[in-house]
Amino acid sequence: MTRPHIHTIHHQPISTQHYGWDNSLPPQLRAAPGDTLDFAIQDASGGQINEHSTAADVLNFDFSRTNPVNGPVYIEGAEPGDVLSVEVLDFQESPGSGSSSAWGWTGILPGFGLLAADFPNPWLHISRYDREKVVFTPEITLPTRPFTGTIGLAPAEPGLHSVVPPRRVGGNLDIHDLTRGAKLYLPVEVPGALFSVGDTHACQGDGEVCGTAVETAMNVQLKFGLLKGANYSAPRFELPGSSVATVGSKGYYATTGLGPDLYVAAQDAIRAMIDHLGREYRLDAPLAYALCSVAVDLKISEIVDAPNWVVSAYLPRGIFG
Amino acid sequence: MTRPHIHTIHHQPISTQHYGWDNSLPPQLRAAPGDTLDFAIQDASGGQINEHSTAADVLNFDFSRTNPVNGPVYIEGAEPGDVLSVEVLDFQESPGSGSSSAWGWTGILPGFGLLAADFPNPWLHISRYDREKVVFTPEITLPTRPFTGTIGLAPAEPGLHSVVPPRRVGGNLDIHDLTRGAKLYLPVEVPGALFSVGDTHACQGDGEVCGTAVETAMNVQLKFGLLKGANYSAPRFELPGSSVATVGSKGYYATTGLGPDLYVAAQDAIRAMIDHLGREYRLDAPLAYALCSVAVDLKISEIVDAPNWVVSAYLPRGIFG
Repeated sequence: MTRPHIHTIHHQPISTQHYGWDNSLPPQLRAAPGDTLDFAIQDASGGQINEHSTAADVLNFDFSRTNPVNGPVYIEGAEPGDVLSVEVLDFQESPGSGSSSAWGWTGILPGFGLLAADFPNPWLHISRYDREKVVFTPEITLPTRPFTGTIGLAPAEPGLHSVVPPRRVGGNLDIHDLTRGAKLYLPVEVPGALFSVGDTHACQGDGEVCGTAVETAMNVQLKFGLLKGANYSAPRFELPGSSVATVGSKGYYATTGLGPDLYVAAQDAIRAMIDHLGREYRLDAPLAYALCSVAVDLKISEIVDAPNWVVSAYLPRGIFG
Repeated sequence: MTRPHIHTIHHQPISTQHYGWDNSLPPQLRAAPGDTLDFAIQDASGGQINEHSTAADVLNFDFSRTNPVNGPVYIEGAEPGDVLSVEVLDFQESPGSGSSSAWGWTGILPGFGLLAADFPNPWLHISRYDREKVVFTPEITLPTRPFTGTIGLAPAEPGLHSVVPPRRVGGNLDIHDLTRGAKLYLPVEVPGALFSVGDTHACQGDGEVCGTAVETAMNVQLKFGLLKGANYSAPRFELPGSSVATVGSKGYYATTGLGPDLYVAAQDAIRAMIDHLGREYRLDAPLAYALCSVAVDLKISEIVDAPNWVVSAYLPRGIFG
């Protein structure tokens, strides 16, 4: 899409951060439906990882400082039962220090991720990217499709709630299709909605299986709207055709997992894909697992042929040179 | 793709059926890697539903006669540990009786399907289709993307096994992307592989949530190959770019379900989509549920942000006039 003309209500991007969700946090600014805001978002490590970090740095991670979100923004007129619409207008990558290209990190954090038991050791990988492509390795190039992994509202329930799990009001949704042109709808539970956003990713697959994507700092511009009394049960979103990923002539290679538990089936499908990436492309297991996280999509092929459901993992083959 | 030149080893399509999987069933014919076979497949009701059937007929269903598969075919040289490749070459729809266009049925069967508790009553819907499109209703047209819902091999475990659940050796996989041009890989567990196929669908979404697709009789041509000693843990498949669905300029509308159980999250996402189809398009609930089954794709957006995973249901908006 062409870059939109942006009406921001503040000249400076919003950079005030908080950790976790809490409806008692004071709003950082007030906006009205129709307004566009600009957010300067730090990566999910809160700056603890830099482009020269190594796996050892992952072990020293201070989890209390991870996944900061920018906000909250009070939306005038928003009330419980309404739905806040958030149109994703554009992103700008933050350049690396002393480098001409932006960078992002993908990590395996001990105890975290779909295959946490299979990958007990810390692991870290740095990719370079620009507006068009992510260079994951010299041989593997992914389309850049930026989105905000964490985007949501304050929940009605009082107190501080972890930023990790997503909720009915959104949060750490990690829906990778929420890129330029997408529109997200979030159920409002408190007066003013109390919107915050963070966790920008340069690209990701459906599932984010190793627990991290291509994690990177970015600026993002969002336009807000309000659906009075729409009363959605959970987030919804719209994707114009222009925002939908295309796979190209090489199509997909897919693995499956089958069984009565979709989570276990997803684990099995990803294990089979790691096996495939090792056999066909000589990727070692942690790199293959991380590639699954940033490029492979998990789909539920069938969920009715009791007692065995089928989860398929789709690898776009065009990413290999 | 252009219609391939087909070398069949028999002039008559294979029409011998069996019910369930059993490695003691005698092979109906023997084929070699490189051979192409033609199968004449009955719909999943085994002919119990016709184009004039009504919901009442669903109640009288004889389940012992459902989901017949054609075979078994003994593949020369196939042994346990090998992988049978099955290339999907082409399909021809069966014309309706006294009608110029083919037809397929979509049913809600009491006790079956992702939302069985929400939809206790039998329901039946007939669609017309040709090689290009499925006319689901006068207002809703889906791309025809034929595939065989049930395609697999005899399991090593002796005895008769229900045709309903898919297994490591394949079976009722209901992977809707296995259309023209796709190649499926099935782990072999018994000498000769003992391949069978059935359950042709004119189109389906990922999930097949109401339990049925656009169920229809079709002829299908399949080409066999053998990967000696490939030892896959479960089925895999390849999709050339030409076989991948395109969504068009209208893109998607998506709903989500969130929580610690992917099955419940999928239920919630489909319930939200039924709500959307009712609000926006005035579809009654059974028709909306059936449309989800034939056109909506279930994806696992994230499976790592403990304790809540996100399942998204994607509706292609181009299907509405």
